Amino acid sequence: MSMNSFGHLFRVTTWGESHGPALGATVDGCPPGVPIEEAMIQHWLDRRKPGQNKYTTQRREADEVKILSGVFEGQTTGTPVQLMIENTDQRSKDYGDIKDKFRPGHADITYFQKYGIRDYRGGGRSSARETAARVAAGGLAREAIRALAPNAQITGYMVQMGPHRIDRARFDWAQIEQNPFWVPDAQAASDWADYLDGLRKSGSSVGAVIEVVARGVPAGLGAPVYGKLDTDLAAAMMSINAVKGVEIGEGMAAAELTGEANADEIFMGQNGPQYSSNHAGGILGGISTGQDIVVRFAVKPTSSILTTRKTITKSGEETEIITKGRHDPCVGIRAVPVGEAMMACVILDHLLLHRGQIGANRGHIG
Amino acid sequence: MSMNSFGHLFRVTTWGESHGPALGATVDGCPPGVPIEEAMIQHWLDRRKPGQNKYTTQRREADEVKILSGVFEGQTTGTPVQLMIENTDQRSKDYGDIKDKFRPGHADITYFQKYGIRDYRGGGRSSARETAARVAAGGLAREAIRALAPNAQITGYMVQMGPHRIDRARFDWAQIEQNPFWVPDAQAASDWADYLDGLRKSGSSVGAVIEVVARGVPAGLGAPVYGKLDTDLAAAMMSINAVKGVEIGEGMAAAELTGEANADEIFMGQNGPQYSSNHAGGILGGISTGQDIVVRFAVKPTSSILTTRKTITKSGEETEIITKGRHDPCVGIRAVPVGEAMMACVILDHLLLHRGQIGANRGHIG
Amino acid sequence: MSMNSFGHLFRVTTWGESHGPALGATVDGCPPGVPIEEAMIQHWLDRRKPGQNKYTTQRREADEVKILSGVFEGQTTGTPVQLMIENTDQRSKDYGDIKDKFRPGHADITYFQKYGIRDYRGGGRSSARETAARVAAGGLAREAIRALAPNAQITGYMVQMGPHRIDRARFDWAQIEQNPFWVPDAQAASDWADYLDGLRKSGSSVGAVIEVVARGVPAGLGAPVYGKLDTDLAAAMMSINAVKGVEIGEGMAAAELTGEANADEIFMGQNGPQYSSNHAGGILGGISTGQDIVVRFAVKPTSSILTTRKTITKSGEETEIITKGRHDPCVGIRAVPVGEAMMACVILDHLLLHRGQIGANRGHIG
Amino acid sequence: MSMNSFGHLFRVTTWGESHGPALGATVDGCPPGVPIEEAMIQHWLDRRKPGQNKYTTQRREADEVKILSGVFEGQTTGTPVQLMIENTDQRSKDYGDIKDKFRPGHADITYFQKYGIRDYRGGGRSSARETAARVAAGGLAREAIRALAPNAQITGYMVQMGPHRIDRARFDWAQIEQNPFWVPDAQAASDWADYLDGLRKSGSSVGAVIEVVARGVPAGLGAPVYGKLDTDLAAAMMSINAVKGVEIGEGMAAAELTGEANADEIFMGQNGPQYSSNHAGGILGGISTGQDIVVRFAVKPTSSILTTRKTITKSGEETEIITKGRHDPCVGIRAVPVGEAMMACVILDHLLLHRGQIGANRGHIG
Repeated sequence: MSMNSFGHLFRVTTWGESHGPALGATVDGCPPGVPIEEAMIQHWLDRRKPGQNKYTTQRREADEVKILSGVFEGQTTGTPVQLMIENTDQRSKDYGDIKDKFRPGHADITYFQKYGIRDYRGGGRSSARETAARVAAGGLAREAIRALAPNAQITGYMVQMGPHRIDRARFDWAQIEQNPFWVPDAQAASDWADYLDGLRKSGSSVGAVIEVVARGVPAGLGAPVYGKLDTDLAAAMMSINAVKGVEIGEGMAAAELTGEANADEIFMGQNGPQYSSNHAGGILGGISTGQDIVVRFAVKPTSSILTTRKTITKSGEETEIITKGRHDPCVGIRAVPVGEAMMACVILDHLLLHRGQIGANRGHIG
Repeated sequence: MSMNSFGHLFRVTTWGESHGPALGATVDGCPPGVPIEEAMIQHWLDRRKPGQNKYTTQRREADEVKILSGVFEGQTTGTPVQLMIENTDQRSKDYGDIKDKFRPGHADITYFQKYGIRDYRGGGRSSARETAARVAAGGLAREAIRALAPNAQITGYMVQMGPHRIDRARFDWAQIEQNPFWVPDAQAASDWADYLDGLRKSGSSVGAVIEVVARGVPAGLGAPVYGKLDTDLAAAMMSINAVKGVEIGEGMAAAELTGEANADEIFMGQNGPQYSSNHAGGILGGISTGQDIVVRFAVKPTSSILTTRKTITKSGEETEIITKGRHDPCVGIRAVPVGEAMMACVILDHLLLHRGQIGANRGHIG
Repeated sequence: MSMNSFGHLFRVTTWGESHGPALGATVDGCPPGVPIEEAMIQHWLDRRKPGQNKYTTQRREADEVKILSGVFEGQTTGTPVQLMIENTDQRSKDYGDIKDKFRPGHADITYFQKYGIRDYRGGGRSSARETAARVAAGGLAREAIRALAPNAQITGYMVQMGPHRIDRARFDWAQIEQNPFWVPDAQAASDWADYLDGLRKSGSSVGAVIEVVARGVPAGLGAPVYGKLDTDLAAAMMSINAVKGVEIGEGMAAAELTGEANADEIFMGQNGPQYSSNHAGGILGGISTGQDIVVRFAVKPTSSILTTRKTITKSGEETEIITKGRHDPCVGIRAVPVGEAMMACVILDHLLLHRGQIGANRGHIG
Repeated sequence: MSMNSFGHLFRVTTWGESHGPALGATVDGCPPGVPIEEAMIQHWLDRRKPGQNKYTTQRREADEVKILSGVFEGQTTGTPVQLMIENTDQRSKDYGDIKDKFRPGHADITYFQKYGIRDYRGGGRSSARETAARVAAGGLAREAIRALAPNAQITGYMVQMGPHRIDRARFDWAQIEQNPFWVPDAQAASDWADYLDGLRKSGSSVGAVIEVVARGVPAGLGAPVYGKLDTDLAAAMMSINAVKGVEIGEGMAAAELTGEANADEIFMGQNGPQYSSNHAGGILGGISTGQDIVVRFAVKPTSSILTTRKTITKSGEETEIITKGRHDPCVGIRAVPVGEAMMACVILDHLLLHRGQIGANRGHIG
């Protein structure tokens, strides 16, 4: 069986393949009364859209979203919102070669093993194109969050490309929108451009690490012990194509810390508890602390490369493959808006869940 | 709201607090006809049991499991299996000090902020004691897996304690059961014993990284795109107390690889596809490849330490705290059987999901 | 919150409003390898389509279904199937009058009370138009059932219109397709035509009882105790617009029987157990017996009538209302294919659930 | 697979068999801060308890509930509440005869066909004893409702036993607690006592109809279109052992009404909309109107009777059976508190769901 929905109360079901007529997100559980227009969602889709610069696939897609239901006179009605994006640039002929061969590192082989049938055109359902639907749903989630947590702000950016990491000392929020990689470090943006250009020309690809931060999220969100905020974020990020690791706050490095070093001390601020540091990434016991929520995830390199690799055919013969076509040298770039969208959906979901509680967030301190 | 269930078809709901009368797991969806006795589950609980050596909390708990339902004449009947563990050593007096203060790095403050009320005795529901219920459910899952995937073997072990990592060149499966840390490296086991003893005596604590491997799992498991095998494993591991990062295969290091280096080449073996390497950790596109499934997770250091830390009280006054009581210098040790249990539950769940499919695993190659 | 999905493994989410651009069903969990074309689904939609005779609303809708995803080269791929139906005949002007008034017996008032906003055009989401999406999903379910239970046959028909009931002695399966009411009794069909014509002309409406039978369904389907086959059927039917009662087998009349009269005696047939009668409606303990599964449901009369009724406005003023526009004198007629569709979805869902079990249906008798 | 949970946010999983060590309800999603003691739940269990008079099974069970988790210092903490009832009077020897034979009209045969194994002692999981767990959960739900809808009152009563119906003209709420049948009609109570005594002596049994009314429930509850309030109530009631039909408001009789007769006219009262009648049973479009919510369900006669019936054995031989042991001549009696409990759970669930909405219930009229 497949499972194409996520979220508890804000429930998103994505559908569609890379080269089918359309793809989209069926969003159930969006609260009523949220002001929404297609342009608000289009804004986020445009960020993710392929073909915008030489660092992403040259496939040209308008990625134009249509709202087919759930909105009346500019507001959500509380009924399902259908967000549809039609596929327009489906150059199927590019994919003829992989019809019977499996690309190493790609879902080609496992989809065939699981389903016995696969839409090989552009990877079908396993294509990163599915993430356009997530971005659309995330755009809607952002608008709903505005009503419930007006101070919340969700921002994603790259912190690593291949072996290159940003210099945290140069971190500058304003830089994120100034370069094609969404890097908060002007120097890195410049260095990485050259690096990636070289990779692109050689037909290679490389991985990346993306960080997504949610600021201004109230304390108390999360549903222990199996709907913890970090649990849901881990699932959300790991479900994105090509992601191989997820970290909250210190992440894997937490293993190296002592208890003294790791425990963020607590003080009393004007508006409630304040912390000396944020090793926890804004989440304790699966519940938000009110600090920044910090998630990172690693994206592996695209498996569609111009280097010849050994593989087998559907009938079990050994052969070689080289993947032509239009691919991203670093899919991590386009994963930034996707990571933001998943964060938005998870935060909204937990805002809604938390409201269901009698005396929600009533554990007032001070 | 809380959410205390996980799994799609093999659905486990854990319940109970550190110092309540009992805790347990309500397991719904276990297939009928699985031979099971309490002793089979007890075996795994005994591995996790506290107080077995000087490296884990000195709390003495029999952790004796009772099967209250769902089993008849030594076999599961297909109805819910209730696994109960009574709490016997609840020294509540040890916890009086934290009644009104929040331990830095602990869920004390967020539980209060979320619920407005918390059972402060031993951390209540946020205690790692909850994981005993997971281990019990995992023991049942292992027996059910036997019927569906007889070759499957699930093994967890530590690969890092604080700054110390195992030497993969010395990796030896046989060592895992030979030392109190479940380390597959005899030299590391010896070195870490001294290191941890020092930490324990100084009242400090440290983090760890655990790796769990499932061998012999058939290809085709996983339910894209939001019930992917890696998605569910990420959620399962991140839901464990104190976990801050989860990795599949290469994990975060995948970001540093090029497409050529990362893509595991495919060959044709006697029993189906074989791979030149396993950067993917046995999962492509969210579906198992038939290779070893490899998951790692980082556990942060216990926040209950003997060093004084700054904090606040429920009424918002700044103060200090020092946590006496019986704590683990490295909770990562007891996380090993917990990680195994979560792996077992996820694998069984996906075995069951996959069977629901017409012509399951029919994409035969070769 | 709204909840617009049903089914456990075969999971259908319907979306869309009466007068929006489109409506449809997002179907997740359809097994791969099911042969499907739009025409197969269209066949069932055509049965439900309004405007086919003088007994149903004169709204003209092509109700043309498009498959937007999940199908490749004429077969399902195991990924979500998006079934879209565009609205073409949205005469919004007809509904201007009910913008500020609530129709008695209609969801107008409760949608407003719940959501604070409602799409008043044609009832918006509460319109029976939503059931077109169910019929489309049911068409897909029927094709999937063919692969899992080739002998299964699902048929719905009217057994009561207003005070008039069919004569069971005249029951004839062949008659069902011969009249506009799907009545298995030629005499009733003829009598009811006159009766309904009178009602239609007077601008009144009337209720009905529909029976849906599934023949050839294997024993063993159902997931006690909260996913029983009858539980899921009751929910499925009660979720249809205007349904006020659901019965299994003897239904409400079971209350009048003694234990001797009610218990269907068991014999041994060539292909397994046989029963002397079917008071149980093919379900014992929530599990199918292999007999015909028999469900009935009552549909109340349309609340949109030409008689003046007292009501209030959104601002709380008392007033009167008369509903012009194009309405069904007996919505029960179009509920027949809807009931069939819901039966198909539930049966498929349970076929899939049952397969997940080790040794499914292994309790062989004889 | 089995499915033993119900509810969306207030999620109840029942477990346990008739003759196992214990049974109970794992309740997840109960809001924090609800005052609760075992005695409050025991009160409702005592109403359902068998052996209280000659009209119910003579099995003696203390049915003593223990709260094992989720409550601290007399209040719920927002974590799972485990409600356990130990079985004390398990006279297994009474059931030896049905080990290899299937009782006609009973779940014996279908449990065997589905699972291949069944706990034949007292019907195992299919026993009405499971409903004790529902009543316990319902007791907790009632206390939580108090905080969210202080005016809500839930009352069940019998309206029909065998062919005998109450006289609605004699309806008296005060009578319900005055007789062993919870009948709101003193004359009926007296007449039915004689009738049932006769049935009991002859070893026969009879069905019944129970009505459950929820008064004081706010408008706006329900989650269209698949989590409608009536949909969830239909599922809740149909999941009770032996139930064969469920009605909302007019129920099956709605089929006979015309649109004019059925539509409850709306007026403006001091506290909002008022209705001229309640054919709708307090639910329009799946959402509560603020009127009384009225549900009825039919319970078939117990299949365990003293009359010899034809049946088969596990190996397929034809034989006869007579069921000795301790059984209810009218299980409908004990279904009254069970129906009330299910109503309480559904109402609470929807109160919680509705709170999750932005501006919940903001569609203010007048």
